[in-house]
Amino acid sequence: MDPDCINPADRLADIRVVLSRTSHPGNIGAAARAMKTMGLSHLYLVAPQRFPDQEADARATGAVDLLHQAKVCASLDEALNGTVYAAAVTARLRDLGPPPLQVREGIGQLLMETQRGPVALVFGNETTGLSNDEVQRCQVSLTIPANPDFSSLNLGSAVQILCYEARLAAYADRSMPQQRKVTPSHSRAATLGEIEGFYAHLEQTMIATGFHNPLKPKRLMPKLRRLFGRTRLEIDEVNILRGVLAALRDHAFSSDKQS
Amino acid sequence: MDPDCINPADRLADIRVVLSRTSHPGNIGAAARAMKTMGLSHLYLVAPQRFPDQEADARATGAVDLLHQAKVCASLDEALNGTVYAAAVTARLRDLGPPPLQVREGIGQLLMETQRGPVALVFGNETTGLSNDEVQRCQVSLTIPANPDFSSLNLGSAVQILCYEARLAAYADRSMPQQRKVTPSHSRAATLGEIEGFYAHLEQTMIATGFHNPLKPKRLMPKLRRLFGRTRLEIDEVNILRGVLAALRDHAFSSDKQS
Repeated sequence: MDPDCINPADRLADIRVVLSRTSHPGNIGAAARAMKTMGLSHLYLVAPQRFPDQEADARATGAVDLLHQAKVCASLDEALNGTVYAAAVTARLRDLGPPPLQVREGIGQLLMETQRGPVALVFGNETTGLSNDEVQRCQVSLTIPANPDFSSLNLGSAVQILCYEARLAAYADRSMPQQRKVTPSHSRAATLGEIEGFYAHLEQTMIATGFHNPLKPKRLMPKLRRLFGRTRLEIDEVNILRGVLAALRDHAFSSDKQS
Repeated sequence: MDPDCINPADRLADIRVVLSRTSHPGNIGAAARAMKTMGLSHLYLVAPQRFPDQEADARATGAVDLLHQAKVCASLDEALNGTVYAAAVTARLRDLGPPPLQVREGIGQLLMETQRGPVALVFGNETTGLSNDEVQRCQVSLTIPANPDFSSLNLGSAVQILCYEARLAAYADRSMPQQRKVTPSHSRAATLGEIEGFYAHLEQTMIATGFHNPLKPKRLMPKLRRLFGRTRLEIDEVNILRGVLAALRDHAFSSDKQS
């Protein structure tokens, strides 16, 4: 184990999601679900209007465990107790707030700070957002880029985006263990020789049917080469294509024989 | 105005969000809201279980206009009619699906493709996701990185993440000149409907020759879809391929007649 390497899961576990004065319990449930899908688990609720609540449980689906472990606090200060860094998620620019950054710019710093201790992402009320006083308790304010004519993200959706960005950032400087291969190869790549064999087979078939006249080629083969050249053919695919051509020839040929 | 610069808002307007067989109308409303916050506007609903519905309106809040303009379709093919590129948003890896990419890797390509025509982001049912058949109609599958122990994102949240990534990508290269195409286009992009026509033609031809037995398909069509799905067929190419098929059929048929 490289001691300089911090387990991404541990970094994510060091992030608190703090929801301040949430009106709708459904949004609390949605936030819990969003957190869990991205590997976050510590939910703090500052003076929620209704909690616990059936609607929160319903929207959390498989993340009710986060709701049961959620800490209900009387104030933002209480929720931030023990943290070393807090980011206010806010759409509006404040006169005297902390420096505003877009989420993607700011999330890396948040993760860096987990080396020093727990950190927090702070979300305000659905209608009124975070108060100036709340924003000023944070070290940075993060904004989600949005349509200026309709920037009203649902609270659960905003939590989802922040947690998603946190997960991507946490795993980014690892060797991306969860990342899958870009194109899973089902068979090995065809060699250029094998692909040439297919082109020859295709050309012969087209000549035999009269579709292609090599004396008046009309750039037919270059066009087909251009098409298949874009695909990075695998050997299985070359075999299928040549199988189709062979079947077509056989069919035509057996018909010829019957005549 | 630099004519080489594409307006990011226009790019986003070329993206359809297609929700297939959605169970809960609340999720349709949440999707509409998520889209509008990021500047997307074209919602297509394939066989929704309940729509229109009060719950959809309630969750859409200020985005009910998108619901009113939403197109309800009987099939995915209908929803994709006129598009040139479709991305399946899916959590599960499919054996013979299109190449899987993480959202952030794949979203740039989706936006690039808007230079050729409308594109689609396709989301499946809340419980069952997209069917293999639906995924195979798309040219790429996009996965949202998630907690492997709980990867069940809410549908509205998934739409939010995709639209957010689309917005960031659209505005990221705003000041950059339009990216030169890797392969200069000789004819316009084939629509997915035209490509489906080619697949149907190919399948019929293979059945007629006995190469393909639809009762024992051996995954032949998915394999061929996967191959051609990588190529971004142009209309001239579809016409050439169908011309080859027609010539082969004619040849076999005229031989039959002679017998």
